[in-house]
Amino acid sequence: MQIEHIGIAVKDLDASNALFEKLLGEGPYKQETVEAEGVVTSFFRSGEGKVELLQATREDSPIAKFLLRGKEGLHHVAFAVDDIYAEMARLRGEGFTLLSDSPKRGADNKLVVFLHPAGTNGVLVELCQEIKSTQTDV
Amino acid sequence: MQIEHIGIAVKDLDASNALFEKLLGEGPYKQETVEAEGVVTSFFRSGEGKVELLQATREDSPIAKFLLRGKEGLHHVAFAVDDIYAEMARLRGEGFTLLSDSPKRGADNKLVVFLHPAGTNGVLVELCQEIKSTQTDV
Repeated sequence: MQIEHIGIAVKDLDASNALFEKLLGEGPYKQETVEAEGVVTSFFRSGEGKVELLQATREDSPIAKFLLRGKEGLHHVAFAVDDIYAEMARLRGEGFTLLSDSPKRGADNKLVVFLHPAGTNGVLVELCQEIKSTQTDV
Repeated sequence: MQIEHIGIAVKDLDASNALFEKLLGEGPYKQETVEAEGVVTSFFRSGEGKVELLQATREDSPIAKFLLRGKEGLHHVAFAVDDIYAEMARLRGEGFTLLSDSPKRGADNKLVVFLHPAGTNGVLVELCQEIKSTQTDV
């Protein structure tokens, strides 16, 4: 599985966009709100992968809760998969716990699902699959 | 800058190797001790990038200190650069704080330097450059 992106929780997306533009040498190529997750995100290209910054848009957002528990920083790592349903079945069979029974529509035209960090050495792992134009089950 | 690897702090490298083999579908391709950093690491291929697991080998290891402050989990993200000296100069000019004045020899035949997380939204950022066979300044 390829690292598709790393997700970084931030308090102020505009300030962090400027910071990561300085760091990575290039600004974000898009910004997107994911209403269902309560986040506004920006994406930076990083070779084959991406860096995603996430700011909460409401108090019950997973990002707001993360910031309440600690501080800004690395939040999750996402791996690209070709078939998220097959991969979910494989990982369930290996004993991993998925945070939802079916994938959700995430940012960046993706179907996404998360693995419970208690089973992955404390790492919040996301699987993501590009939504195919023929895919109607989302 | 491309994501070269993500680093994950673990307590028990053998157990975590088995866990990440299940997760990623493939075992580590190498294991390496970095005496200067007090870590033993394993590397998994992940598309163009890598996943690095890090276990402390002594109490004053940065990984031991990280685990004391919290728990296992995402520790750092490393970006590949072509010329680490040029990139260090550029980032100093942008106001970032480097954790060492000159790069160190890291795992996996790399010259590495870290940026202070206070200046990068709490993210421990590593820059790494492949050591060239002609490079004598390391």
